Amino acid sequence: MDSQPDIAKLISSYGNRIDALMRKVLTRRGQGLLIRPIRHHFGTGGKRIRPAICLITCEALGGNPDRALHFALAIEILHNMFLIHDDLEDGDRVRRNKPTVWVKFGIPNAVNVGDYLLAKVFDVATMADLPDKVKLKLIGVLTRTCMRTIEGQAMDINSRGDANFTVRKYLKMVRLKTGCYLACGMVGGAIIAGAPESVQEKLWRLGDVMGPAFQIRDDLIDLTTGKGRGGEIGCDIREGKPSILYAYALRHANESETLRRIMLKPREKTTNADVQRVIRIYRECGAVEKAERKAEELLKKSVAIIRTLPLKNKPLFMALADYMISRRK
Amino acid sequence: MDSQPDIAKLISSYGNRIDALMRKVLTRRGQGLLIRPIRHHFGTGGKRIRPAICLITCEALGGNPDRALHFALAIEILHNMFLIHDDLEDGDRVRRNKPTVWVKFGIPNAVNVGDYLLAKVFDVATMADLPDKVKLKLIGVLTRTCMRTIEGQAMDINSRGDANFTVRKYLKMVRLKTGCYLACGMVGGAIIAGAPESVQEKLWRLGDVMGPAFQIRDDLIDLTTGKGRGGEIGCDIREGKPSILYAYALRHANESETLRRIMLKPREKTTNADVQRVIRIYRECGAVEKAERKAEELLKKSVAIIRTLPLKNKPLFMALADYMISRRK
Repeated sequence: MDSQPDIAKLISSYGNRIDALMRKVLTRRGQGLLIRPIRHHFGTGGKRIRPAICLITCEALGGNPDRALHFALAIEILHNMFLIHDDLEDGDRVRRNKPTVWVKFGIPNAVNVGDYLLAKVFDVATMADLPDKVKLKLIGVLTRTCMRTIEGQAMDINSRGDANFTVRKYLKMVRLKTGCYLACGMVGGAIIAGAPESVQEKLWRLGDVMGPAFQIRDDLIDLTTGKGRGGEIGCDIREGKPSILYAYALRHANESETLRRIMLKPREKTTNADVQRVIRIYRECGAVEKAERKAEELLKKSVAIIRTLPLKNKPLFMALADYMISRRK
Repeated sequence: MDSQPDIAKLISSYGNRIDALMRKVLTRRGQGLLIRPIRHHFGTGGKRIRPAICLITCEALGGNPDRALHFALAIEILHNMFLIHDDLEDGDRVRRNKPTVWVKFGIPNAVNVGDYLLAKVFDVATMADLPDKVKLKLIGVLTRTCMRTIEGQAMDINSRGDANFTVRKYLKMVRLKTGCYLACGMVGGAIIAGAPESVQEKLWRLGDVMGPAFQIRDDLIDLTTGKGRGGEIGCDIREGKPSILYAYALRHANESETLRRIMLKPREKTTNADVQRVIRIYRECGAVEKAERKAEELLKKSVAIIRTLPLKNKPLFMALADYMISRRK
């Protein structure tokens, strides 16, 4: 598609700038014994999508993206801190084909290094050469994001196999867990560009619709191509994760008791036949179709919000939204 | 001692003000599913010593302690966040006679709620009605403190049974892990009082000597009266914690191999006879005496630094330092 901007290339060029700053302030030296787990984790790669969105938003709203570099890096550190702790909380042993931090360095070190990175988020965010007022606003964006994301994670952890889980609860959970977090880079970019409050509010709302769209696609991908852990299908089912499919099927499938029984099984006891059975339940009760429709609806809402934003390069932003929602995290 | 100010009473009166603010911003409502572990943990008590020191320092340097209330609360939240994660990292099952958060709510929830509280530290610190410049300085104090404390914790976690542990490494570890953390309330109080940089620097140095003095006393208490977990003696020995006694005995005791073997045993396999044997090793090689001398020396250095501070009420501050060092954490 010639007319489409090459989003992947753009993200990678912004990503390189983030990596350069990251080497300076995080992975090159210092941090004592923490440097090994930090290097191990960041060495597993990552596409730097979140910080790139921050820089692209800042530029599209007329700001200088160089001034947003520290904030963008702060977001990337926050993202990775969540990955380290989430892997431990979810019992995931492999990330990007390497052992996760808790597997390689033990639970105590994984908890501790995540804490370090969370403090580093605030340290890096205040390093930028920006007015005090702006810095404090950015800190506010980060604390709001952390607290909401963690509230969402609490719902996630405690809803495994929950008999009372609903689509409504699911949407609240993913708005908290994914939406806020996705918006935060855009909102920070807007603040640095000097965009008015009304634009910042719209970007938060954009996160509230794009985040769930993103997450629903992720839930669906798990049923077909797998989430990138060696292409294994049904990771969410094995982990008992409360997906939109689970929420819908719980109310609409005839076999909802079987579904719950499989979701509550420890991961290592869930067989491939169990996974196939749950996928069949999801298809037969209409959960897959419902999820696809919901994602479409949220994507349309995202586009409607983007149309109202005073962006210099709207097609680029549309393409970016499309890229993000159609990709895995 | 009539002439001594009643420190415990003073701390408790400041503590009540902290608790009132805490109920407003943390434990009363909100936070979704996180409220249960938060209430459970904060419901176990705590003497609010750290925030009280912050308020006392602010007042002693001519500031209005009311303006330091939010920062003081931020420190108390930070302290408790560390306790929740440390208990998990150390495998401690009981705190103040109640099950620790990871025991009651599981490891995933304990990690997650600690993360929430760490974000809340920065949220609460920026709530105060203070100039932007001051708020950013306070954020700097908090990030420095978090990062150093966590670096110290990394040394602690990774030095269990370490054959190359030295008194020098021990002192570095406790300066990082205990010193910075103890100074941070005083430094924040000084910043809010408008005290010059030179005073702030002295307070950091005060932490560097008082923190280790405090920790060495704690190491010694473990050998005689226990650390308040039902009065059990030798918790550090059972956990294999790198104390000053261990560091010294490793170099000076004839039975250093026996010592390491016992320190490396899993906690549940360490017998009372093992604990008694290690205590005997510590006494015989002079480690206990060395530790006592070191604590005295550091206490003297603390007093010398306090003498140079422009405090309104120096005897009170001296009594406070003495109270802190002679108490358990």
